[in-house]
Amino acid sequence: MPKVVLVGERELRDLVPLDRAALDAVRGAFLALASGRVIMPPILSMAMPEVHGEVDVKTAFVPGLDGFAVKISPGFFDNPARGLPSVNGLMVVLSATTGLVEAVFLDNGWLTDVRTAAAGAVAADALARPDARIATVFGAGTQARLQMQALALVRDLDEIRVWARDSVKAAACAADIEAATGVRTRAVGEPRAAVSGADIVVTTTPSSAPILFAGWLAPGQHVTAMGSDADTKCELDPAILARADRLVVDSLAQSRRLGELRAGVAAGAIAADAAVDELGSVLAGTAPGRPGPDAVTVCDLTGTGAQDTAIAALARARADAAGAGLATDL
Amino acid sequence: MPKVVLVGERELRDLVPLDRAALDAVRGAFLALASGRVIMPPILSMAMPEVHGEVDVKTAFVPGLDGFAVKISPGFFDNPARGLPSVNGLMVVLSATTGLVEAVFLDNGWLTDVRTAAAGAVAADALARPDARIATVFGAGTQARLQMQALALVRDLDEIRVWARDSVKAAACAADIEAATGVRTRAVGEPRAAVSGADIVVTTTPSSAPILFAGWLAPGQHVTAMGSDADTKCELDPAILARADRLVVDSLAQSRRLGELRAGVAAGAIAADAAVDELGSVLAGTAPGRPGPDAVTVCDLTGTGAQDTAIAALARARADAAGAGLATDL
Repeated sequence: MPKVVLVGERELRDLVPLDRAALDAVRGAFLALASGRVIMPPILSMAMPEVHGEVDVKTAFVPGLDGFAVKISPGFFDNPARGLPSVNGLMVVLSATTGLVEAVFLDNGWLTDVRTAAAGAVAADALARPDARIATVFGAGTQARLQMQALALVRDLDEIRVWARDSVKAAACAADIEAATGVRTRAVGEPRAAVSGADIVVTTTPSSAPILFAGWLAPGQHVTAMGSDADTKCELDPAILARADRLVVDSLAQSRRLGELRAGVAAGAIAADAAVDELGSVLAGTAPGRPGPDAVTVCDLTGTGAQDTAIAALARARADAAGAGLATDL
Repeated sequence: MPKVVLVGERELRDLVPLDRAALDAVRGAFLALASGRVIMPPILSMAMPEVHGEVDVKTAFVPGLDGFAVKISPGFFDNPARGLPSVNGLMVVLSATTGLVEAVFLDNGWLTDVRTAAAGAVAADALARPDARIATVFGAGTQARLQMQALALVRDLDEIRVWARDSVKAAACAADIEAATGVRTRAVGEPRAAVSGADIVVTTTPSSAPILFAGWLAPGQHVTAMGSDADTKCELDPAILARADRLVVDSLAQSRRLGELRAGVAAGAIAADAAVDELGSVLAGTAPGRPGPDAVTVCDLTGTGAQDTAIAALARARADAAGAGLATDL
C-alpha cells in the first residue's frame, strides 16, 4: 500500500494560513459546484444528546482534483468546561482515482475554520460594494475573528465593529481583529448601532433566533450569515430574505434544510420554491451579482463538502511541497 | 491535545483476528441496538460514476463504550486491474465524552471484514440448528472465506461447500477455507446441489439479482444473506422472504432501504410494514429465534455502524494493552 501522510494542527496552521490562496481554493469549489459536476451528498449528522455532543461528516467529489476529503467534525458542548474546544475533528483525503487513503489531517477544525472564513470573503467580494469600508461582525468567536481577517483580504477596510451578547468577549475579539488586520476595530454595545452605517455585516453566531433585523438595514449594505448550519438555527429576521434585492446561498439544498432559507420558508417570508441563486453561479457569471450601489445583498453560507475537498487539496499540495507531516506505511 | 494513536493494517490483523472476542463484540453491538439506546444515523453514501468509485461512511453511538467510530469505506472498482483491492478505507475513533480524535485505524477494511464475518456467525449461532454440520457459501471472495471461518467458531462443521460463478475461484476459495478451518471443503459446480442437504447457507456476493431460490430450500435450513448493502443489490429470491418461518434482519431501517427487504417489498413478496424482527431482539430474547428443528430461518445483514463502533472499541482496547501503533501529538 502507498504511504499515508499524517499532518497535525500545528503544521497545518503554518501550511494553510487564511490567505489569498485559501480564498482562491474556496472560490474554485463554488465554481465547481456551479458547474453541476460536483457530487455532494447530504451531510451525515449524528446528535448524541446524552453526552451533549454531535458529529457531522461532509464530503464532496470535485472533478479535476486528485483527491476528495471526508471531514469528521465533532462538537461536544461540555468541552469548554473541561478546558477543551467544543469543535475539533479531522479530514481524511482519499485518492479520487483509487479511493486509497492518502492523507489524514489531524487539524482539530483548523481547515474548516479557514475554508469557512474564506467563503465569507468570497461571498463579500462577489456581492458587497467595491468601495465598502466599514464592516460589522456579530459574534466574538473564532469565526468572528477569521471572517474579518478574510474580509480584509478583499476590501480596503477603514473600520471594523464587533457586537456580541457578552461585551467582554466582544472587546477581546475587537482587540484580536485589530491586531490581526491592522484595521481600527471596536466593540459596539448595541447591535443596531453596530449595523448603522456599515457596508458589510457578517453574522457568525450559533443563534436559534434572529439577531439581525430587516428594519436595521440600509441601501448599499451586504449581509453574510454564516452561523446557521442546522435546522434549529437562524440568525436573520426572515423579513431580510424578502427585503434583499439579491439573495444568494452557498448550496440551495443545504440552505433549504439547514440554513436561513429553512427559517425563512418556515416563517412564510419566502416561497419554498423561490428562485434563489447559488454563490457559484454568481462567481461564474451565470447569475447576477449586486444590482447596483444601493441594493441590499444577502448571502447565506451553510458550509459545503466541496469547500472541504478544496481546502484539503490545498493542504495536501502544500504538505507535499514542504515534505511536512509523517509519511507512514503502518 | 491528547495524543492520537495510529495503527496500520498489519498490526490490526494481529491485534483483532476473527476470534470469539470479535464475535462477542459484535453480539454486544446487536444487543445494544435492541436496547433502543444506540444512535445510528443513515449511511452517508457517495457514488462517483466517472471514476467507477463510491464511498460509504457509517457511524453509531453505543452507550457504555468509551468511543464511537466513524468508518470511511471507499470502493473503487477499477482497482483490481491496477493490482489494488477494490475496498479499503479506515476507521476513526472519537471519544464519546469529548469528541476528540483518539485513534485512527488504517485498516484497509480489515476491521470491517472481521465485524461482517462475525455478524454472520452471531446470526447463525442464534438461528441455525445447534446440530448443523454442513455449511454452504455462495461467493469466493474475502467474505466467503471469513464467513466460513467465523461459522466454524460457533458450529461443529463436518463439511463446507463453495459455489461461485467462477469455478476456478471457487476451488481456490475452498482450499483456503479448508486450510483455515480444518473442515473438509469442496467447490460445487451447481448452486442447487450445493444447497441440497446443507444446514446453513451463507450468501456473500454483490449480486443484483437473486442467486438463491425458494424452491431449493428444505426444512431445517438457515440462510444468511450478507451481500446486499445497496438499493441495487439482492441475493435472495423474494419468495424466500415469504417462505421463511423466521425472518430476521440486522437493522430494519437499513434492510428496508439497502437489503433483502427492499427487494422483497419491491417484488410484492412481503409487505412494506411486515413485522420483521431485528437480530438484537432475538439475541436479547425479546423476539423468538428458531421455532423448531424443521423451520427455515433467514437473516439479512446489511452491516451496521454499531458493529463498526464495537469492533473499533475492541481494536482500541487491544492496541492500548499492546502499546501498538504510533502515538502522536502531531
